[in-house]
Amino acid sequence: MIDGRSYAEDLYQQVSDAVRRLGADGVRPGLATVIVGDSYPAHAYERRVRRLATRLGCHYVREHLAADVAEADAVAAVGKLAADPRISGILILRPLPPHMSEAALYRVLDPGKDIEAVHPVNSGLLALRRPRFVPSTPAAVFHMLDRYLTESGRDPARTYAESTLVVIGRSANVGTPALLLGLERNATVLSCDEHSHRAGLLYDYTARADILIVAAGVPGLVRGEHVKEGVIAIDVGINAVTDPVDGTVRLVGDLDLASVAARAEAVSPVPGGVGPITDVWLLANTLRAAWLAATPSQDGSFDDVVGIDRVGPRVPAPGGELVSTATS
Amino acid sequence: MIDGRSYAEDLYQQVSDAVRRLGADGVRPGLATVIVGDSYPAHAYERRVRRLATRLGCHYVREHLAADVAEADAVAAVGKLAADPRISGILILRPLPPHMSEAALYRVLDPGKDIEAVHPVNSGLLALRRPRFVPSTPAAVFHMLDRYLTESGRDPARTYAESTLVVIGRSANVGTPALLLGLERNATVLSCDEHSHRAGLLYDYTARADILIVAAGVPGLVRGEHVKEGVIAIDVGINAVTDPVDGTVRLVGDLDLASVAARAEAVSPVPGGVGPITDVWLLANTLRAAWLAATPSQDGSFDDVVGIDRVGPRVPAPGGELVSTATS
Repeated sequence: MIDGRSYAEDLYQQVSDAVRRLGADGVRPGLATVIVGDSYPAHAYERRVRRLATRLGCHYVREHLAADVAEADAVAAVGKLAADPRISGILILRPLPPHMSEAALYRVLDPGKDIEAVHPVNSGLLALRRPRFVPSTPAAVFHMLDRYLTESGRDPARTYAESTLVVIGRSANVGTPALLLGLERNATVLSCDEHSHRAGLLYDYTARADILIVAAGVPGLVRGEHVKEGVIAIDVGINAVTDPVDGTVRLVGDLDLASVAARAEAVSPVPGGVGPITDVWLLANTLRAAWLAATPSQDGSFDDVVGIDRVGPRVPAPGGELVSTATS
Repeated sequence: MIDGRSYAEDLYQQVSDAVRRLGADGVRPGLATVIVGDSYPAHAYERRVRRLATRLGCHYVREHLAADVAEADAVAAVGKLAADPRISGILILRPLPPHMSEAALYRVLDPGKDIEAVHPVNSGLLALRRPRFVPSTPAAVFHMLDRYLTESGRDPARTYAESTLVVIGRSANVGTPALLLGLERNATVLSCDEHSHRAGLLYDYTARADILIVAAGVPGLVRGEHVKEGVIAIDVGINAVTDPVDGTVRLVGDLDLASVAARAEAVSPVPGGVGPITDVWLLANTLRAAWLAATPSQDGSFDDVVGIDRVGPRVPAPGGELVSTATS
C-alpha cells in the first residue's frame, strides 16, 4: 500500500518551504474558493483546503453564494476575485446548480489564476506538453508514481518509457489530463471508458497494464483477476457506499482493494491515497500562480501563456526549487 | 484502397457550396499563408492551398519572408494579418528558421484565425472536446474514417465505440489531436511512439488495432505481419525515399503498403490518401473562421472561445450545412 498521507506530508513541507522563500521576496500567495449552494462534498473539500491555506500562512477568501444566486451575480463574484491582486488562484467548486453554466464562470476566470486548469488556454498548454497548471488530482497521481518509482529503486523516466499505462475514465479534470501526463512521460498509453467495458475490451487491457490509473467512479470495477501480477495500481475513484446491514456510509474506490493488492506490486488505496496529495497540490498550484504573477518576465498576457516551455523536473527533488514543488 | 482524391473532390464540392452560401450573406473567406525561407515542401504546400483558395474564390494573401528576416519583422507581418479584417485564417508554414521561435509568432496569431489550432486556446478546446478548429491532417483522417465506415454500411458511432484505435506518433499537429479525436468518438484509444517500439511493445499493439493510424515518419514501419486481418489502416507518413538503383525520389508512407493491404479491409495509401483531403480541410477551416467571425453571437472574445459546445455532426451529410462541412 502506498501511503498517500505520508507523501502528502512531505509535499506539504516542500510547499511550506516554498511559501517561506516567496515570502522573503515579498510575495504572499492567496487562494479563493467559490462555492454555489450547499453540496456536502464541496464544503468538505473547501474546509480541507482552507485549513491548509491558513496553516501555510496564505491569504484565503471563501466566496459562498446561495444555491439560487443569479448567474450574473456569480459571474460578478468571480470577476471581482480575478481582479483582486491579493488572490493568486481561484478554485470554482463543483457541482454548480443547474441554472448556471460552468463556461459563464470560467469565462471571467483569469487564466493566470486558473489553478485547476479548466480554462481552454491551460488545458491546451497541457495538451501541448508545456503545462502552466496541472489539475490537482492527476498531478497528485503522477507525483505519487514518480516518487514511488524513485523510492523503489527505479529510474522513473526509463520505467515509464517501457511501460503500458492504462487510464480508465476520461473526465476533463482527471482521466484526460492523466492521459496527457502519461504521454508527456513517454509511456505507451491506453485510454478506456465505459464504451470499452460494453465492448468487452476493458479487462483485456487492464490485464496488460504495468501501471493502472482507475478514475471511473464505479466501486469494485477492477478486481485482482483483471490485473497483471506486479501491477502498480492507483485508485482515484471516490464512491460513497452504504452498508446494507447497519446503514453506515463509507468511502471506497474503484478497485476491489483486497484482491488487487494480493497481485499488485503496489496499490494506492481509497481513502488515504491520492486524495491527501491532491489537497496539498492545490496549494502548490496557488503558489505557482503567485510565483508566475510575481515573476517580472510574466506579464499575464500571451507572453506567459505561450512562453512556458518546461515546468521543472518530473520528480521534485526534496527541498528543491519552488518550480519543482509546484509542478509535475 | 481508400481513394482520398475522390473523397477530397466531394469535400471540395461541399466547401464550394458553403462558400457560395456565405457569399450570399456577404461574407468572403480570406486565407493568408506565412512562409519564412525557402523550404521546398512548404512552398509546394503553399502552391496547393493557393490554387484551392483561388479556385474557391477566396481572398488569398501569401506573405513570403526571407530566411534571415528578423523575428520582430516576422512578428509584425503576422500581427498585420491578424488585424486585417479580410483575412479569416492564417497558416504559418513550418519549418521556421532556427533563429525564430514558433511561440513568438503564435503569440500574435489571433486565436479566431488560428485555423491549424496551434494556439493553446484552440488546442485546449480540442482537448476539452469542444473543438473550434481541428488541425487539417487529423481532421482529414477522421473525415475519411467517418465516411468510409458509413459507406461500408456501418454505424460509425457504434463502430468507434466497439473498436481499439491505435495511433502511432504523438506530434502536436497530428498524433496528439488524432488521439483526442479518437476519445471524442468513444473508441478505446492506444497511443504508441518510438518508446513503445524500443520497449518491444509496438507490434503487440498494432496487432490489436481495429483502426490503425500511423504518423511516425518511418518508411515501412508497419508490415502485414504486424496487423490484424481486417484492420482499417490510415497512413499519414510522408517520407521521401531515394531509389538506390536509379536515384529517383518518390514519396512513401509509414506502411509497407502491399503486405498491409493484403491483410487489411481497407488502407489509405500515400500518396493519394489523407493528403488531398488535408488540403481541402484547410480551406474548410478558413471558411469556418470566416463564419465564426461573421456570426453575430461570436464576439471574438471568450464568449466564443468557451461557448462552443459541439461543432456539428461527426459525419458531414452531403450538401449539409456549413458547420457540417467545416468541422469533424
